[in-house]
Amino acid sequence: MNYSSKLLEQAVEEFGKLPGVGKKTALRLVLHLLKQSDAEVNSFTQSLDRLKSDIKYCRTCFNIADEEVCEICNSLKRDRGLVCVVEDTRDVMAIENTNQYNGVYHVLGGLISPMEGVGPSELKIEGLIDRIRATQVKEVILALSATMEGDTTIFYLYRKLKEFDIEITTIARGIAFGGELEYVDEITLGRSITTRVPYERNVG
Amino acid sequence: MNYSSKLLEQAVEEFGKLPGVGKKTALRLVLHLLKQSDAEVNSFTQSLDRLKSDIKYCRTCFNIADEEVCEICNSLKRDRGLVCVVEDTRDVMAIENTNQYNGVYHVLGGLISPMEGVGPSELKIEGLIDRIRATQVKEVILALSATMEGDTTIFYLYRKLKEFDIEITTIARGIAFGGELEYVDEITLGRSITTRVPYERNVG
Repeated sequence: MNYSSKLLEQAVEEFGKLPGVGKKTALRLVLHLLKQSDAEVNSFTQSLDRLKSDIKYCRTCFNIADEEVCEICNSLKRDRGLVCVVEDTRDVMAIENTNQYNGVYHVLGGLISPMEGVGPSELKIEGLIDRIRATQVKEVILALSATMEGDTTIFYLYRKLKEFDIEITTIARGIAFGGELEYVDEITLGRSITTRVPYERNVG
Repeated sequence: MNYSSKLLEQAVEEFGKLPGVGKKTALRLVLHLLKQSDAEVNSFTQSLDRLKSDIKYCRTCFNIADEEVCEICNSLKRDRGLVCVVEDTRDVMAIENTNQYNGVYHVLGGLISPMEGVGPSELKIEGLIDRIRATQVKEVILALSATMEGDTTIFYLYRKLKEFDIEITTIARGIAFGGELEYVDEITLGRSITTRVPYERNVG
């Protein structure tokens, strides 16, 4: 593309590095920001600079936080015997939004993925084991994605955690609520039959 | 959403103000930037700050530029008697990419849109008229979008410019190359019949 300005080209290139943002979208976003007031652009860039310099990771659960220990880990209302292991902060937000969970979290910061060169040592697995050793954890829920990487990580964590006297569970897998049988993929449908549950349990 | 950090929430809000970026996309982009190195995030924010503080608009054609006069207006190879009037810098880039145009440009900075409260005084129309008065312009091409706002702006410009001894043209409208007749909308197809051209002209 023929940019009339180097400054414009650089800004478009920076935006184009973001995931899912192509050159055309990047240009549209940059031209939008160029039309905004100085104060608005400042507020945009400063929020990023501040995020990058001041953000902390909770020293207990490794979730993104403003303080040394996050609000959830600090809360007295939370059951600290119940630890839900998730991939990243988006999963914490998703589970919090359900209002169905009263335990605490442990954020791994990724999943084991040999394809992308992510091994167990890159994840906060040692932190989880230290935590189980040091505190009165009764149950660990492995709430990871139902993907190859998620299953690999669950398997790895299960082998590491089974020596402790704790319950290890995974979130239920099956047909989504509102899902129509004919559109469900074969693996999910087949598994949901072999792992069928008594009717009383499902409605309870 | 339950953000675990105010800083995170603010950054997501800033990204969410960009056109076409919803809350979920904003969160994905912010978490992506958070994973990058300090240097990369600095380079991102600084490119925006520099763009906003140092960008100039060519004093002849009002296109985005790094200098007082843009490269195109400065070029001796360009025909300054031919002025192509466009909405914004993206249109300049699109026309430059065709390699079919050797004149200069005039960037209006928008289109007349009563719905969005944009009147002729917000656009660089006076600048265009001053330019026609001061220099030897022979032809003005109105290369604006084929929308209500584009047509309104073309009509307004035509009335303003017809008193000058210059040729006023618009870019050709019709069926796109590669377009199949049955999928063309009725207005375009109807107009392309009433404004049909001799075969020799179209292949030339």
